[in-house]
Amino acid sequence: MNYNKVNNEVLSSLIGFIGLENVKTDGATLEKYSYDETPHGLRALPEVVLKPENTEQVSRILSLAEQNRIPVTFRGQGTGLSLGAVPTSGGMLVSFERMNRILEVDEDNLMAVVEAGVVLQDLRREVEKRGLFYPADPGERTSMVGGNVGTNAGGMNCVKYGKVRDYVLGLEAVLPSGKILNLGGKVVKRSTGYELIHLIIGSEGTLAAVTKVTLKLIKLPSLFITLYVPFNTLQGAIKSVSEILRDRITPTAIEFVERDVILETENRIGKKMPNHDSEAYLIIRLDGDNDSLLYDEGEKISGVCLRNGAVDVLVADTKESQNNIWDIRSAFYEGIVKNKDVEVIDTAVPRSKIPEFILEVKNISSRYGVRILCFGHAGDGNIHIHPQRNDLSVEEWSKKLPKIMEEVYRTSKAYGGTISGEHGIGLAKKKYLQIGLDEEQIRIMKEIKKIFDPNNILNPNKIFDIDDSTELVR
Amino acid sequence: MNYNKVNNEVLSSLIGFIGLENVKTDGATLEKYSYDETPHGLRALPEVVLKPENTEQVSRILSLAEQNRIPVTFRGQGTGLSLGAVPTSGGMLVSFERMNRILEVDEDNLMAVVEAGVVLQDLRREVEKRGLFYPADPGERTSMVGGNVGTNAGGMNCVKYGKVRDYVLGLEAVLPSGKILNLGGKVVKRSTGYELIHLIIGSEGTLAAVTKVTLKLIKLPSLFITLYVPFNTLQGAIKSVSEILRDRITPTAIEFVERDVILETENRIGKKMPNHDSEAYLIIRLDGDNDSLLYDEGEKISGVCLRNGAVDVLVADTKESQNNIWDIRSAFYEGIVKNKDVEVIDTAVPRSKIPEFILEVKNISSRYGVRILCFGHAGDGNIHIHPQRNDLSVEEWSKKLPKIMEEVYRTSKAYGGTISGEHGIGLAKKKYLQIGLDEEQIRIMKEIKKIFDPNNILNPNKIFDIDDSTELVR
Repeated sequence: MNYNKVNNEVLSSLIGFIGLENVKTDGATLEKYSYDETPHGLRALPEVVLKPENTEQVSRILSLAEQNRIPVTFRGQGTGLSLGAVPTSGGMLVSFERMNRILEVDEDNLMAVVEAGVVLQDLRREVEKRGLFYPADPGERTSMVGGNVGTNAGGMNCVKYGKVRDYVLGLEAVLPSGKILNLGGKVVKRSTGYELIHLIIGSEGTLAAVTKVTLKLIKLPSLFITLYVPFNTLQGAIKSVSEILRDRITPTAIEFVERDVILETENRIGKKMPNHDSEAYLIIRLDGDNDSLLYDEGEKISGVCLRNGAVDVLVADTKESQNNIWDIRSAFYEGIVKNKDVEVIDTAVPRSKIPEFILEVKNISSRYGVRILCFGHAGDGNIHIHPQRNDLSVEEWSKKLPKIMEEVYRTSKAYGGTISGEHGIGLAKKKYLQIGLDEEQIRIMKEIKKIFDPNNILNPNKIFDIDDSTELVR
Repeated sequence: MNYNKVNNEVLSSLIGFIGLENVKTDGATLEKYSYDETPHGLRALPEVVLKPENTEQVSRILSLAEQNRIPVTFRGQGTGLSLGAVPTSGGMLVSFERMNRILEVDEDNLMAVVEAGVVLQDLRREVEKRGLFYPADPGERTSMVGGNVGTNAGGMNCVKYGKVRDYVLGLEAVLPSGKILNLGGKVVKRSTGYELIHLIIGSEGTLAAVTKVTLKLIKLPSLFITLYVPFNTLQGAIKSVSEILRDRITPTAIEFVERDVILETENRIGKKMPNHDSEAYLIIRLDGDNDSLLYDEGEKISGVCLRNGAVDVLVADTKESQNNIWDIRSAFYEGIVKNKDVEVIDTAVPRSKIPEFILEVKNISSRYGVRILCFGHAGDGNIHIHPQRNDLSVEEWSKKLPKIMEEVYRTSKAYGGTISGEHGIGLAKKKYLQIGLDEEQIRIMKEIKKIFDPNNILNPNKIFDIDDSTELVR
């Protein structure tokens, strides 16, 4: 693509828009905004980092970029796992860190209106004070709402409560022209023209800048319990998941993890989980407002698990004991990824297909002689799969890894699954998009991109290339 | 638009595709498919009615229509209320009545896969046999799933369970080119490219033919109770709704109705509701699996209602007594619309704004000297507003009605509401679209339409005109 550079004239306009202190071109800042949390991920320096504080400023920045044909990448907290926020074409990086106001918690309509840069755990804390609950729960709670919208983040609570998409009722978004779209709002029913909100959700910053979000909230359940269930066999753990759901029990979360993931996480964060001898574990959260109903469900789940070879069922019902388990769960990713050559594969398959799918992944692991660790959201079919380099040479690794990825994606597709369940495609998974989507779907998506962003300045070359410059695995 | 007619050559191709008995050109059939349930609505004859039985046939029909530039209108049960399925440009009318198979009720994944022509009440019956629940509950239970997808239908249960959109996980849809899109599937998490499913949902047959739908199901609650609550004042009824929700109680449904609607419905269907002396009524459904929890909620709701001037709170907990109430509720629309000059306005506003909004509607009613009856989904802000002609002359009525509609839409917009909550825009509300959506949003929608349907053969002139031939109320 033929982009222009951020020259002095552009810089001085930007300074005029948002002030000198919010226009950063020093090396340390550019470096800090050059990567996300994708393991051993690509780094790419932006030419300038911008920190607007309101929508009007975002609008002026975008229309300047559009007029000058300068690429713009949006960034929340940079916790993405598919290089979505890495400014691979240089240009402007717009960070939403200063747009971090919770504008309203509306207790009459059970909604919150927030700026894109609000941090997830701040939002949750704020609404929980009022007895309300924002259930979308990506593993990374320091992520920002805007980023969550960008990838249609999912997380733990999907089994019962769904994804970010299910909670977005309104969006304010800015187009490259600088025009501001006000979509939806505090209305729960809408049948008025095509659904642009859902088009922007999950578009990874390629269609518009999301500046403000209206989110649905629900009543905070008064009771939570967590079950920690070690199994002697991986298949027993996974089979229990299907049976729990088939028994019409809907836990808040059902997380699955292999022993090695727990061991590596414990090593890293210095906390201990009970039982280290079992092959696989389920961590199950239940919520509700009635004690006996909740423990009944817990009993039923225990029964299912014990029938499928669970070694024990440990029940955590104090806040502290539950937090201990979920803190370790939240650290799994870091545990197995930090300082290692690892890939993160984020397929989602129909829940009932998880046993076969994981078996197939283990077969792939044996065939290539590459260790693959699995954990993830078994209750919703979204398993994170982590091939590790370990003792392989860099050459062998770089030969084998793309083949492994391709095989895992094809397997997921064959089972009716997707390429990405919640991390998004970004740059990291772009090559594999066409395993998941057919040519006609991608053609339509490219045409949609052109409507929103005719000069291709918004996060160019993420999800797909308008000009087909990347060779796709077909 | 410059469309071609369905000539003999086209007819004989169609007969070749789907058989003579499924290609209807007789006057009686054309007449039967020329209207929907919009009161005193426009009629327009198609040139041919087609009854394909599978996706392949739909694909062949569409690609023939595209090659010959013949308009195509899709029709489910024809229960729409905005003229969406009326073939105003003639051409082919594709009825999905023969594509009525429930292909699968998947008890492992809690999903159903159905053809577009499956009737809602058949689907519900089938899944309820298995202890499962499809909660999307449009008033018209004889409607078809495909039509529900077309308008993003809502209905009664939105308070707790959301709209049709919230239950669609996969779609099979056919483009005018004949290409078949397989979108999503039995996967509950997906972050893989732009969301085309949600673009097609609510697009009222203007983007693609929906042929197959994968729907999320949930566990069927074991207990339901219904409260029937007469109020001396309309404001007391409406105020109770906000307070119930503010108290963090989430009923399945909260329906609001004025006395006159009940009286007219009783007259029509020959069933009686208790209490006829009160100005307004709430009908509230609760569901759950725990008796005492459910009755606790019922008690709390009673308390709120009585504090706000409820005359009584009648509890129906047998299946029969509840059905009696909900059968009458389902007949409201017919009760006040049949054989009368009536308009149906389907605005949705933030729940907390309902009291002010209804007051404003009543003011509009007085100012124009036109009776306006209201009922609808108070729990989700979607109130159906029915101006009636009564003794007005046709001239007066046709002068006043557009002004009333415009004022109601502007009021809804001012309160943060929409033009249509669940009926869709179709032809009937097209003039008013720009009160709800700004020019840029409509521009984007038109461009999206061109991607899917470049020759504008799919349900032309619904929602908006590609060629701006209708003058919009701005």
